[in-house]
Amino acid sequence: MATSSPETSLTVMDHILNRLSALGVRHLFGMAADYNLKVLDRVLIHPRVRWIGMAHELGAAYAADAYGRVNGFGALLTTFGVGELNAINGVAGAFAERVPLLHIAVGPTRATERARLVVHHTGGDADFDRFARAHRQVVCADAVLRPRDAVAEVDRVLATCLRESRPGYLRVPRDVALAPALPSGPLDTPDTITSTVDSPDNVEAFRAAARARLARARHAAVLADFLVDRFHARAELAAFLAASDFPHATLVSGKTVVDEANPRFLGVYAGAMSPARVRAVIDHADLLILAGVLLSDYTTGKFTHEFDPDKGIDLGPRTARVDGVAFPGVPLAVALKVLTELVGEHPRAEVSVDEPEPQGLAALARHAEDLSDKARETAAAVSRKVCGSILPLTQTYLWKAVGEAVRPQHTVVADDGTAMFGIMDRRFPSGARFIGQPVWASIGYSIPALLGALLAEPSRRGLLLIGDGAAQLTVQELGTIGRHHLKPIVVLVNNDGYTIERITHGLRAPYNDIARWDWQSLPAALGVKKPLVLIARTPAALDNALARALATTDRLVLIEAFTGKDDVPPAFLRLVVNRPDRARWVP
Amino acid sequence: MATSSPETSLTVMDHILNRLSALGVRHLFGMAADYNLKVLDRVLIHPRVRWIGMAHELGAAYAADAYGRVNGFGALLTTFGVGELNAINGVAGAFAERVPLLHIAVGPTRATERARLVVHHTGGDADFDRFARAHRQVVCADAVLRPRDAVAEVDRVLATCLRESRPGYLRVPRDVALAPALPSGPLDTPDTITSTVDSPDNVEAFRAAARARLARARHAAVLADFLVDRFHARAELAAFLAASDFPHATLVSGKTVVDEANPRFLGVYAGAMSPARVRAVIDHADLLILAGVLLSDYTTGKFTHEFDPDKGIDLGPRTARVDGVAFPGVPLAVALKVLTELVGEHPRAEVSVDEPEPQGLAALARHAEDLSDKARETAAAVSRKVCGSILPLTQTYLWKAVGEAVRPQHTVVADDGTAMFGIMDRRFPSGARFIGQPVWASIGYSIPALLGALLAEPSRRGLLLIGDGAAQLTVQELGTIGRHHLKPIVVLVNNDGYTIERITHGLRAPYNDIARWDWQSLPAALGVKKPLVLIARTPAALDNALARALATTDRLVLIEAFTGKDDVPPAFLRLVVNRPDRARWVP
Repeated sequence: MATSSPETSLTVMDHILNRLSALGVRHLFGMAADYNLKVLDRVLIHPRVRWIGMAHELGAAYAADAYGRVNGFGALLTTFGVGELNAINGVAGAFAERVPLLHIAVGPTRATERARLVVHHTGGDADFDRFARAHRQVVCADAVLRPRDAVAEVDRVLATCLRESRPGYLRVPRDVALAPALPSGPLDTPDTITSTVDSPDNVEAFRAAARARLARARHAAVLADFLVDRFHARAELAAFLAASDFPHATLVSGKTVVDEANPRFLGVYAGAMSPARVRAVIDHADLLILAGVLLSDYTTGKFTHEFDPDKGIDLGPRTARVDGVAFPGVPLAVALKVLTELVGEHPRAEVSVDEPEPQGLAALARHAEDLSDKARETAAAVSRKVCGSILPLTQTYLWKAVGEAVRPQHTVVADDGTAMFGIMDRRFPSGARFIGQPVWASIGYSIPALLGALLAEPSRRGLLLIGDGAAQLTVQELGTIGRHHLKPIVVLVNNDGYTIERITHGLRAPYNDIARWDWQSLPAALGVKKPLVLIARTPAALDNALARALATTDRLVLIEAFTGKDDVPPAFLRLVVNRPDRARWVP
Repeated sequence: MATSSPETSLTVMDHILNRLSALGVRHLFGMAADYNLKVLDRVLIHPRVRWIGMAHELGAAYAADAYGRVNGFGALLTTFGVGELNAINGVAGAFAERVPLLHIAVGPTRATERARLVVHHTGGDADFDRFARAHRQVVCADAVLRPRDAVAEVDRVLATCLRESRPGYLRVPRDVALAPALPSGPLDTPDTITSTVDSPDNVEAFRAAARARLARARHAAVLADFLVDRFHARAELAAFLAASDFPHATLVSGKTVVDEANPRFLGVYAGAMSPARVRAVIDHADLLILAGVLLSDYTTGKFTHEFDPDKGIDLGPRTARVDGVAFPGVPLAVALKVLTELVGEHPRAEVSVDEPEPQGLAALARHAEDLSDKARETAAAVSRKVCGSILPLTQTYLWKAVGEAVRPQHTVVADDGTAMFGIMDRRFPSGARFIGQPVWASIGYSIPALLGALLAEPSRRGLLLIGDGAAQLTVQELGTIGRHHLKPIVVLVNNDGYTIERITHGLRAPYNDIARWDWQSLPAALGVKKPLVLIARTPAALDNALARALATTDRLVLIEAFTGKDDVPPAFLRLVVNRPDRARWVP
C-alpha cells in the first residue's frame, strides 16, 4: 500500500485504489489533466494499480469496459467536465451491457466550489454538479465525495455496481481525493454478491416448477447470453450443459460464454439471421431454457426470434421464471445449480436431448443452406485453386477465413456492424474469448476495448475485427496499443464507408461515404513500432496474410481486407432470404 | 425548399432545416447512423443546407460550435444514444462559451417507444428519455418532439438559444422528423432578440448614471470579451471605441472582437500573465468599462486581475451596471450605443483618454519588460543571423514568428494550453479572426473547430495552432478537413506530451507523457492530398517553414515545430515572475 504505516495517512484516493485492487483491478485507464495530477501521484505509487494514459477519454471508458468484462471490474479516471463528458458514451455502454466499472471524475477543490469561482471546465457558471447530474442518467449509483463519509460512499457505489453489474460514478473534488480516509471494513466479493439467495423458499418453489417442466420436455434446448458472464454463472452453466447434454446456442452478445468446441453447441442464434440448424433447434424446442438472456434488436436478427420468451425456463440475474411464473430472489448461478441437480435426478433418457428434426420451411431452409454452404465451399475451393488471386474477396470468404484463424489463446474483439455479423457465424476453438458490444452498438468501441482486454489478460493475443468507418472514431488508440507493445492482429475491412447502413438505406447516398484513409501507413504514423501491414484484395491474398499474421507474433499486424461496397456478411443475406420484411427495418 | 408546392408535404425536419437556414446555417455537421438515414435524405434535398459528415460526433459538435461563433448559429445532427453522447462534451462547451447551436438527436420511432422494445443504442431497458435528461444539463432549452406541437417546440427551443446564446437540444423520433409540419410564422432575427430593450426606463437611468461616472473619469479604459460577439454588439463596440478613443484590451476569450491594428488597442489582458503595459492600463484605470466580459480562471491569469469588477461600468448581455448598481433590461448593444452618445456629448478633452503612467511596481515591470523585450529581440536577431539554424527553437521565438505570419484573411484557431497562451500576446492585423475555447478548455477542440470556421467563411485561410497532446484527441478530423479540400496551415507544437501540465505538476511524471506519433506522415495517412509537411527545430527553419506555408496556398501545410519539454510561452513566464504564488495554482 502506498502509505502503509499510520492508518490516518491513507487518503480517500488510496481507499478507492485499494478497493479497486481488491476487485482485481490492476490497470486504471484515463487521461491526465490539471485537476487530477496530484491524485495521479497516488496512482503512481500504488503497488498494485497501474496508470494507463489514453489518447482520448472515450478510449479510457471503452478500455475500462472491456477490462471489466474480462476481469470482473474496470475503472477509469478523468478530469471534471471535459474529460468526463468525453467518456460518458463509453460509460453508458457499460450501463447497457451491464459491465461493472467505476468512473472517477476529479474536479476543483471544495474551496473553489464554495467561492463559486468560474474556473475552466465549468459551464461558465460555477454549477459544479452539472456533469454529475448528466452521469446520473447512465450509471446505477453515484456520489459526490466529502471527507466525512467518503469511504462509506465509495463502498456504497462499488457494492451497487457489483450487485447491478453496472457502472458507478464518483465526483471527487481534488482536495477530497487527497484527504485522509477513515478506516473501513471488508467489501463483499462479486460472486458472493451475485449469488446471494434472497429467498430460499423461492429456490425450492422454482425447483418444483422446473422439475415438472423438465419432465414434460422432449426437445429441450438452451440459449445463453452475456448476463451469465456478468453474474458469475459461467462455471454453473458449463456444469449444467455437461450434465444435461442439451443442444445449446448463445446470442452474439454472449458469444464464447460456452465452450464452442462442444459438439452440442449449435452456434450463435440471431433469429432469422441464424443458420437454419440453429434456428430450427432454438425456435422449435418444446422447452427453451434462457440463461442470462437480454433480447435486443441486433442480437435477435431484428426481433425475428420465433420462440416465446414467456414460455419455458428463463433465468435472469436474480429472478427465475417457469412458463412466465416468476421466482424472485433466485440468482442465475443458483438456478443453474438447481437445474443441474434436476437433470441428475433421472437417467439421461428421461430428459430427451434429441434435436427436433426441422420441418416445413425450416427443413427447406436447412436444406437450402446446406446446399448453399456446399456450393460456397466448392466455389471457394475452386476459386482458391484456379483464380484465388484474381477473384475479389467477398465477405463470405473473409469471415470463414478469419474464423478459421481464431486460436484458443485469442481474444477476438469485433466492432459493431460488418465485423460483428461477419464473425458471429464462426465457431471458435475452446478457450478463445469473444468481446463485442451489440446492444449499445457504439462504433469505434473495439480498438480501445482490445487494449483493455489485452491488459486484463496479457497471455492472450488480440484479434481485432473492424470496418473502416468504425475505425475512424477511435483510431488514436492504435497508438496507445503500440505504446504498450501489444502485438494484436487487426483485420480492417475496407469497404469505403458505412456498408451496413448502405444496405439499410441510402445505397449511394453521400452520407454513407467517409474520408479515404491510407491504412497502410497509419499504424506507423500513430507510433506503432515496425508494424507488419498487409493488403488482401483476393481470397488467396487473405489466406496468405492471415497465415503470416499468425506466424508473426513479435509485432502488430494489420491486414487491410478490401471488400465490395455493397457486400455483406452471410448473416445479413440470411435475414434478406428468411425475413425480407425485416431486412431494412429500423426500429 | 425541398417540398415546395403543397404546404402539408413539409416535414418536421424540413421545418427545422428551414429555420436553421433562416438563421444563416448552410452546413449541418454530424454522422450518419441507421436511425437518421431517412432524415438525412431531407438534408440532401434541401436547397440551402449541406450535410457535412464527420469522423466522430465530437468533431461534429466542435465544428458546429466554431461555425456558430463565426456565423451566428450552428447545428449538428447525430443518432440517439451513442452519437449524441459522443457529442455532448462539445455541446457543453457551447453552453460554457455561449454559442447558439442546435443539437438534433434522431432516434427510434414512437411505435418502438410505445412497444418499449430494447433496441440498439438504448440503455438495454427501453428508457428513451435517458440521454435527453443527460443533455438537459448542458443546454438552455430542449424538447422531445411530437407531431402535434413539433413546430412550436422547435421554435421555442431556437428562440431560447438565440436569447440565451447557448445550445439547444431536440430529441426527435425518426417518424416525427418525417411527419408533416404544421404551418408556422416568422421567427425573430438574432440581433432583434438580443437587442430588444426590456425596460426603456432603465436605459435612461443607466444613461444618467453612466454620464455621471464618465464625467468623473480621468483614466478610462475598456476591456471587451466574447459576449460582445455573441450578443451582436461588435459594431456598437467599434463605434464606441472610435468615438471615445479609450485605450482598450480584450480577454483571450474575446481576442479579435476589436480591431487589433487600432493604435489604442493594448493587447490581450490576462491579469499577471499580461504584458506590463496592458496590466498597468487595465488594472489602474479609474474607470474600467467591461463590455461583455466573463472572468474565468484561464482568461484572467488564474484570477490575478487587480481591478474590481463591481466598480466602473459593466455591460452584461442584458444588464448594465454602474459601480455595482444594476440596470436590468438594458442589452449590451443598447448600452454601448448609450455610451457612444455620452462621449459625443462633450468635446473629447472632457473625457480623458490619456493612459495612466504606470507607477511603482507596474512601472518597474514595464521597464523590465521593455528591457527584456529588447534583449529578446536582440538575441533573436543575433541568433537568426549567427546561429539561427543551430540554436533550438523556443516558445518565445515560435509565437513571435507565428504571430507575424498572421494575415488579415486568416482565421486563427488555437487549441487550449500552449497554443492559446502562446498566441494571445500577438497583435493580429485588421480583419484576422481568432477562435479559441479558453473557458471550457477542452483539448482537441481546434481541429474540428477549424473545419467549422472555414466552412462558415470559405474566403479565409485557416491557421491552426495546436500542441501534440491536444491533437491526439481529434486527429481524425484532419481527414475531414482534407476531404473538403481545405488548405489551412497547421502549426503543430511537438513538445513530447502535456507541457502545460508538466509545468503545473509532475514535471517528469509519466502521466504527462503521450504516445509519440509520426506527424510527418499523418496528414497523408488521413487522406489529405499532397500535404506539404515541414519540420522546424530551429528559428531559421521555422522562419523558412512559415514563409513556405504562406506561399503555398494550394494544399494543406503542416509545420511540426519542436520545442523543449519544459519550455512555455512568455505569458506563463510572466505569471511566474509576477505572481509566483499563482503559477502552479490549480483551482
